[in-house]
Amino acid sequence: MDIAILGYGVVGSGVAEVIRKNGRSIADRAGEQIRVRKILDIRDFPDSPDRELMTRDPGEIFGDPGIKIVVETIGGTGAAREFTIRALSAGKHVVTSNKELVAVHGPELLKLAADNGVSYLFEASVGGGIPIIRPLSQCLAANVINGITGILNGTTNYILTKMRRENCSFEEALKNAQQNGYAEADPTADVEGHDTCRKIAILSSIAFNEYVDCSRIHTEGISRITLADMLYAEAMDSVIKLIAVSRREGDRIFARVSPAVVSREHPLAGVEDVFNAIVVSGDAIGDAMFYGRGAGKLPTASAVVADVIDIVKHNERTKMVWQRRETDNMVPFGDSVTRCLVRAKARDRSEAAADIERLFGQVDHVRADIKGIDDELAFTTSRMTESSLAERIAALKQMKSVKEVVNVIRILEP
Amino acid sequence: MDIAILGYGVVGSGVAEVIRKNGRSIADRAGEQIRVRKILDIRDFPDSPDRELMTRDPGEIFGDPGIKIVVETIGGTGAAREFTIRALSAGKHVVTSNKELVAVHGPELLKLAADNGVSYLFEASVGGGIPIIRPLSQCLAANVINGITGILNGTTNYILTKMRRENCSFEEALKNAQQNGYAEADPTADVEGHDTCRKIAILSSIAFNEYVDCSRIHTEGISRITLADMLYAEAMDSVIKLIAVSRREGDRIFARVSPAVVSREHPLAGVEDVFNAIVVSGDAIGDAMFYGRGAGKLPTASAVVADVIDIVKHNERTKMVWQRRETDNMVPFGDSVTRCLVRAKARDRSEAAADIERLFGQVDHVRADIKGIDDELAFTTSRMTESSLAERIAALKQMKSVKEVVNVIRILEP
Repeated sequence: MDIAILGYGVVGSGVAEVIRKNGRSIADRAGEQIRVRKILDIRDFPDSPDRELMTRDPGEIFGDPGIKIVVETIGGTGAAREFTIRALSAGKHVVTSNKELVAVHGPELLKLAADNGVSYLFEASVGGGIPIIRPLSQCLAANVINGITGILNGTTNYILTKMRRENCSFEEALKNAQQNGYAEADPTADVEGHDTCRKIAILSSIAFNEYVDCSRIHTEGISRITLADMLYAEAMDSVIKLIAVSRREGDRIFARVSPAVVSREHPLAGVEDVFNAIVVSGDAIGDAMFYGRGAGKLPTASAVVADVIDIVKHNERTKMVWQRRETDNMVPFGDSVTRCLVRAKARDRSEAAADIERLFGQVDHVRADIKGIDDELAFTTSRMTESSLAERIAALKQMKSVKEVVNVIRILEP
Repeated sequence: MDIAILGYGVVGSGVAEVIRKNGRSIADRAGEQIRVRKILDIRDFPDSPDRELMTRDPGEIFGDPGIKIVVETIGGTGAAREFTIRALSAGKHVVTSNKELVAVHGPELLKLAADNGVSYLFEASVGGGIPIIRPLSQCLAANVINGITGILNGTTNYILTKMRRENCSFEEALKNAQQNGYAEADPTADVEGHDTCRKIAILSSIAFNEYVDCSRIHTEGISRITLADMLYAEAMDSVIKLIAVSRREGDRIFARVSPAVVSREHPLAGVEDVFNAIVVSGDAIGDAMFYGRGAGKLPTASAVVADVIDIVKHNERTKMVWQRRETDNMVPFGDSVTRCLVRAKARDRSEAAADIERLFGQVDHVRADIKGIDDELAFTTSRMTESSLAERIAALKQMKSVKEVVNVIRILEP
């Protein structure tokens, strides 16, 4: 079985490397040899072991009937989308690690694959090397999936772990992540939660068997999280993580990406550094967690190759396509329910405490001895809707007793 | 697609229940309706919702060409084996949760399935509802698997968690587990590690692509673990778990089941109660962990149903059979290398310390303030072979300075 790779970046070159290195065991599993016939990239790689395979002409790939599977590791929604459409239309299977393309154009690309009797697979788009897409769609097939909760971005988890362990600021931890190659020069997509948002959209679409549009998911990143927030969390025997949640609520779907206070009792609390983990809640299985390296050249490449093997072994075709519902399928963010940790700088502590109780009812005060902070009240709210929360926070800001609302961080419910 | 269930116990009745409850989503995933046509059991179930399906005559199942898949949830290696052979020989797929049968007769049953062009699947035999067999054989197909480390038995993990949290003895915790239905009246198979041993044998056979015989795996249970052992582990910032390990060592395979001191830094340390977790180490993926409820009616049943769906959807046939190697494929236990925590009751502390140093070289002493224990020396050894360890422990027992070697517990290496 001959394949082509589009884009010889980190993941693309990793795919070639894994196939070269583990060729024998891959052939054992797939039932036949898998060979890379062509690699498309516009750059020169004179020192690469794959240099003989390079081409700049897409026609050499799409016009070659001997190439049955195309691996798309270009990224983005430009050339990647164009080439994916071209490959599927030509009756070639496509395997990708491109979460943006799947999250944004998944319904159309899956339909195109189904119409052409081929597969469009994307195990590597979520959780790097962690097998999650296939377990979710196949192994858990006997369950009705009620919800998914996960740490889906290695960069932000590395930054948060670094801040907590080394008592440093977000900016310092980000710089360190960039120096170590765990964050890009422009870290926005990771740090502001967009990457996590695309991933939870993909997982939700599979779990709930209909398209969940990532642009409809409320998304907050970690750039406003401070060391003091972490020390308050510590006082609650918790840690702060960037958490994606999604769940069925009646006939609709709720999804959100935000920093959250996670109790140390929760299995996600122990997920550190660049690791990712995904908790899937099914009606029969209960909670199952999948954990591993969420990114990196070889883990991601091995997930791509697993998809390739699956196509070779099962000659599988995409059947499940993601329908876009005609009516709105998402719970409006304001209607969703949450608990929060609120930090407020007080002008007058006892007056502020009275105002808080008037606005939020009974609250639990969180006491933490934090250097340089002595005029703050921190408390956790009861469960309330996001719109009710927003109103009360706005009102709190107006109080004379309160100088400033420092931060509002959601609490992950068990 | 019509199926039959052999054995209407906890798992068998769970399978019928999951198919009844989630019929629609199962049909969505499988591509067609799955119906239970017959259930074989010799007992009466007059109040069961499945009573109309019951039969005592195996012929009604094996002679019915309309039944394409047989679910074996009888357990053991007697009737279960006989019926499995009969079903496979009749060209029916077999799905099972029976780890003993798979561990002991796997090679023959897989070959019989392959010869008859049908499948023999056993996702539910390890890890209850946790998808692990399929991810291991399919999703990780692109990796060379180097090792597996796991907590594979819910009963023993519940007992160890209970002992540590509630400061109670093994006997008290076992009694509690029995009262709560987490341990059987005869708990030997769980408590002495035999259940764990069968499961690691199955996982190893898949990972290393050849038969690993469970009778060749060194197996120790948890019945000799005391609260004091746990307090020493605590002093090492660790916990004690019943751990199965297996890994490639050159051309051979090493596997072991034993209690082990597990550092809190290790992802398995946080696995509590009846939960199971399996860490798979691949050359490309690094470490991936699978976590969830390792037992229970519905989790296990959902794993059985996932296998059924897989057969319906892919019309898959068993191809991979486990070869028995002609020569010994296991690392002799005495040659395997380990570190240990050793507890010795001293007649004379300073003399005992000198004897220990003479026998074990440089050791790290573990200091714990344990009520009622004041004449003990506890220490961790360097890495050494099991035979060297056994010799030194035997010598230590002979020392005049030493009254008794209280316990020797292996340390899980990271």
